[in-house]
Amino acid sequence: MSHPAEPDTPSAYEPTTRTVPTRSRERASYDRELVHSILDGAYVCHLGFVRDGAPVVLPTLYARVGETLYVHGSTGSRPLRMAGQADPGLAVCLTVTHVDGLVLARSAFHHSINYRSAVIHGTAYQVTDPDEKRMALDALVDHVVAGRSADSRPANAKELAATAVIRIDLAEVSAKCRAGGPNDEPEDMALPHWAGVVPVAPAYGAPVPSEDLADSVALPDYLAALG
Amino acid sequence: MSHPAEPDTPSAYEPTTRTVPTRSRERASYDRELVHSILDGAYVCHLGFVRDGAPVVLPTLYARVGETLYVHGSTGSRPLRMAGQADPGLAVCLTVTHVDGLVLARSAFHHSINYRSAVIHGTAYQVTDPDEKRMALDALVDHVVAGRSADSRPANAKELAATAVIRIDLAEVSAKCRAGGPNDEPEDMALPHWAGVVPVAPAYGAPVPSEDLADSVALPDYLAALG
Repeated sequence: MSHPAEPDTPSAYEPTTRTVPTRSRERASYDRELVHSILDGAYVCHLGFVRDGAPVVLPTLYARVGETLYVHGSTGSRPLRMAGQADPGLAVCLTVTHVDGLVLARSAFHHSINYRSAVIHGTAYQVTDPDEKRMALDALVDHVVAGRSADSRPANAKELAATAVIRIDLAEVSAKCRAGGPNDEPEDMALPHWAGVVPVAPAYGAPVPSEDLADSVALPDYLAALG
Repeated sequence: MSHPAEPDTPSAYEPTTRTVPTRSRERASYDRELVHSILDGAYVCHLGFVRDGAPVVLPTLYARVGETLYVHGSTGSRPLRMAGQADPGLAVCLTVTHVDGLVLARSAFHHSINYRSAVIHGTAYQVTDPDEKRMALDALVDHVVAGRSADSRPANAKELAATAVIRIDLAEVSAKCRAGGPNDEPEDMALPHWAGVVPVAPAYGAPVPSEDLADSVALPDYLAALG
């Protein structure tokens, strides 16, 4: 799902103290399109927050709509309750990581991973506007499988009431990427160890229909296109 | 890499206030073997810590050795420095997530993800013992590609000095898993929407040798076996 930036949106996020890494600065980027592509290419993030002074990191689904990320969950879920109670909101760090390859160097030291990650620092607020909440829930379904929200029964009033949605604006954001082969030391080049990259990517298997699915319901095109 | 528990190790971790979820408790488990299998089947975790009162979540490699997790990084890296300076250590939350499938229900509300995650709460300490540090670095390489540490040039003194390793003991640990098809409402069963699961799993591509790799270096068996 692509949401073109407004014409007056800067092409990069402003770096801040906490989005400038202490090391490998050459891997860091604040480019808006790069950040969007990292966020749009995944659907599970790791959401961090502080509870009783200690860090908590939980995997959860998310969706991007323009310059906002949405996360949903049960109204009983801990961070969603905390975002609703806390004033002014809940401090969060939301991280999305793609692993693109295993980098094998001749030396153990230079082994690495090719990856693209986006780290979002911000404040999570509960979405209370019913229209925004509905839009966010559609986006969350469509972010996992594009086109799916229009091909499912929308949430009813009871389901909406049981679901909490939080929003985090994209403001303090950075990406970090590594690509390419190993960076071996010149004196190691003649060592007899294989060097290179093993590509990694998530793969979809053939869709498995529910046992109780009627034969008359065909596999929709948007699912057939996933594999 | 499997590390059988000692005969007197309990088969489950003791639940604590923060490892008992507020919801979906039936998905939570403290089973040691399950936790180990989740940890051993991945190599990237999301490490959370608190900096200036705010949460930070960073992707990083890890390895399990028995009941200890190791994470490494540059001595200049923020959490590794913090674990070295802090007394008594740095409070962390380390989370590992496998996505196993997209669960498509007839209703938007019952869409879900099949997943297995492990959440480790604990304190990270810098490893200062040289033997433990070397062992951990070998484990980190072997955790990504089993057998690789023996087929690469070991770290020299300069590289060891530039690398920090932290350890987190597995004590306050839980797993959370969802498997199976959608849980649609009885009144939705006749709706004309496809329902079922799309399996997801990471896949390895064909290894790509470095351009400067000598023709005499063949692809090792442990890499050929990955695909």
